[in-house]
Amino acid sequence: MIKFDEQKQLKSINGALALRGEIERIVDAIYAEGFDGLFFVGIGGTWASSLQVATYMAGKSALPVYAENAAEYVTNGNRRLGPKSVLVFSSVTGSTEEVAQALELAKKAGARIFGFVDDPKASLARKVDYLVSYPMQEQLKFLMVALRLMYKNGEFPEYERCFEELDAHLARGLVEAEKAADCFGEAFAKAHRDDQIHYFVGAGTQWGATYSYAMCFWEEQHWLRARPVHAGEFFHGLLEVIERDTPVTLFLGEDAERPLAERVRNFLPRICGNYTFIDSKDYELEGISPEFRGAVSHLVMRVVTARIDAHLEVENRHPTEIRRYYRRLSY
Amino acid sequence: MIKFDEQKQLKSINGALALRGEIERIVDAIYAEGFDGLFFVGIGGTWASSLQVATYMAGKSALPVYAENAAEYVTNGNRRLGPKSVLVFSSVTGSTEEVAQALELAKKAGARIFGFVDDPKASLARKVDYLVSYPMQEQLKFLMVALRLMYKNGEFPEYERCFEELDAHLARGLVEAEKAADCFGEAFAKAHRDDQIHYFVGAGTQWGATYSYAMCFWEEQHWLRARPVHAGEFFHGLLEVIERDTPVTLFLGEDAERPLAERVRNFLPRICGNYTFIDSKDYELEGISPEFRGAVSHLVMRVVTARIDAHLEVENRHPTEIRRYYRRLSY
Repeated sequence: MIKFDEQKQLKSINGALALRGEIERIVDAIYAEGFDGLFFVGIGGTWASSLQVATYMAGKSALPVYAENAAEYVTNGNRRLGPKSVLVFSSVTGSTEEVAQALELAKKAGARIFGFVDDPKASLARKVDYLVSYPMQEQLKFLMVALRLMYKNGEFPEYERCFEELDAHLARGLVEAEKAADCFGEAFAKAHRDDQIHYFVGAGTQWGATYSYAMCFWEEQHWLRARPVHAGEFFHGLLEVIERDTPVTLFLGEDAERPLAERVRNFLPRICGNYTFIDSKDYELEGISPEFRGAVSHLVMRVVTARIDAHLEVENRHPTEIRRYYRRLSY
Repeated sequence: MIKFDEQKQLKSINGALALRGEIERIVDAIYAEGFDGLFFVGIGGTWASSLQVATYMAGKSALPVYAENAAEYVTNGNRRLGPKSVLVFSSVTGSTEEVAQALELAKKAGARIFGFVDDPKASLARKVDYLVSYPMQEQLKFLMVALRLMYKNGEFPEYERCFEELDAHLARGLVEAEKAADCFGEAFAKAHRDDQIHYFVGAGTQWGATYSYAMCFWEEQHWLRARPVHAGEFFHGLLEVIERDTPVTLFLGEDAERPLAERVRNFLPRICGNYTFIDSKDYELEGISPEFRGAVSHLVMRVVTARIDAHLEVENRHPTEIRRYYRRLSY
């Protein structure tokens, strides 16, 4: 399998799960002190991850937890983000200017800052109140924060049992899912490498996956045109431009908004002959109980789409680490 | 001028402004009773309007005001929407199923419901706690709610002066803007009627305008492919697929997020030769003070894009009242 190192991947996921003690101490301290708002802040891909975790919590937790776009916060401000608020972010090096500015602004507003900074030597790492430093696995880190918050708030009594399962089985489950998806990824890449526009549709925690996959992967890395569309909004515009050969890929997860994706799944084949359904249910995740699958089905989607990326890079002879304009021209 | 009735338009806007007494009584009652969350709820175009008003308030008001997507609320739920909450929506006939379901759910949660229902005979009109019935002008109605809330909360002392100006000058200003934009609209429609994909970019209160223009107008009404992109997110993906001839239209408003649009405006011509900037600043709005223009610049954008729509309908010989699939097939 190209671009895949099983041992490295297992280690990366298990290493993130091993941060739990550290994350628990921080979340427990934040919870004990109390907050009037906890904002996951990001831009681009980290904004998508913020949306995922905020959406996951909205239906399950009464805690005031929100997603905040860094660029919007920096320009528009947020009057509800103040001295009793908490800002949570994830960054590799802290060099994304909108996020760096958002931190400064939130600090000035008196908020506590909880940062996942991959590189502990990044200057940003010294500016946070709470720091966790470990590379990659941003979506899993955010999920761990969310589940602990809900546990503390009496909304997730299954916390210990859930993490017993995740600690024992998640890394293996995701690695097996990625291996199982390789043939699919190759066929998909071959079929869609020349697409003029590809529509990606998803809802719930899959919306962040849909949004970031279209934008951060197809547009930014593959230089292919894509449009992410929320499955709940599909019937309010997009459907009218779908024709027989229009490429549409639907992400189906196992969270509360799955019915919105299913509505599209049931309708789409009537008007489109070039659709793909990627359903996290098709991946086994051995050892993970049904009631916890919704919390991690966006992680399944990530490893499945990683197989498309690996093959698309080869098919199009387009190395994905190259940027045409981003960070090559100033803005 | 095709598809334009000056007197009708003046009357429509002034009629909406004349709802102020009614809106004030309702908002004042809601404010007096207090709320732990006020949610503008919508789907498709009404979701876009909800985003606009929530974004406008975020930077200016400490009130807990949010936008909520009806389809997401119905499936995912919202634990923070309860007996002390208020739901505000706008609907023509109340036949949009996601919105109707959201109301039922919010009522069950004990929330108070404030509905703008164009048709007072719609069954939905009987289900609300507070009803205002008047056709069209949804964005203006929501703005009136927002400004009154901010006034009550001590965040908009200029309220009376602002509405003196709007009452006296807004309708005329928007009508003159629409007339001034007609030649532009015709030229734009001729230039872009065959576009394979058109990118619309905007931020702040223009984000809702951008989102709904791409989706509810280009996709749904013109059956033309479009992708809305938030100006704050432009540099995190989209820019890599912009080439010399890629059609990109940037909406510039006069609200707090204008700098995000200006960043795109300054960058785009370096990589694209097929761009259009629509700037609300280019429209006079005589009698409206600079400090109030940001509150209404999304209304300016709406009348400018209305000119594109009128001409595009003729250019493409595609009557915009036809739907290919929406409400013609069940889903």
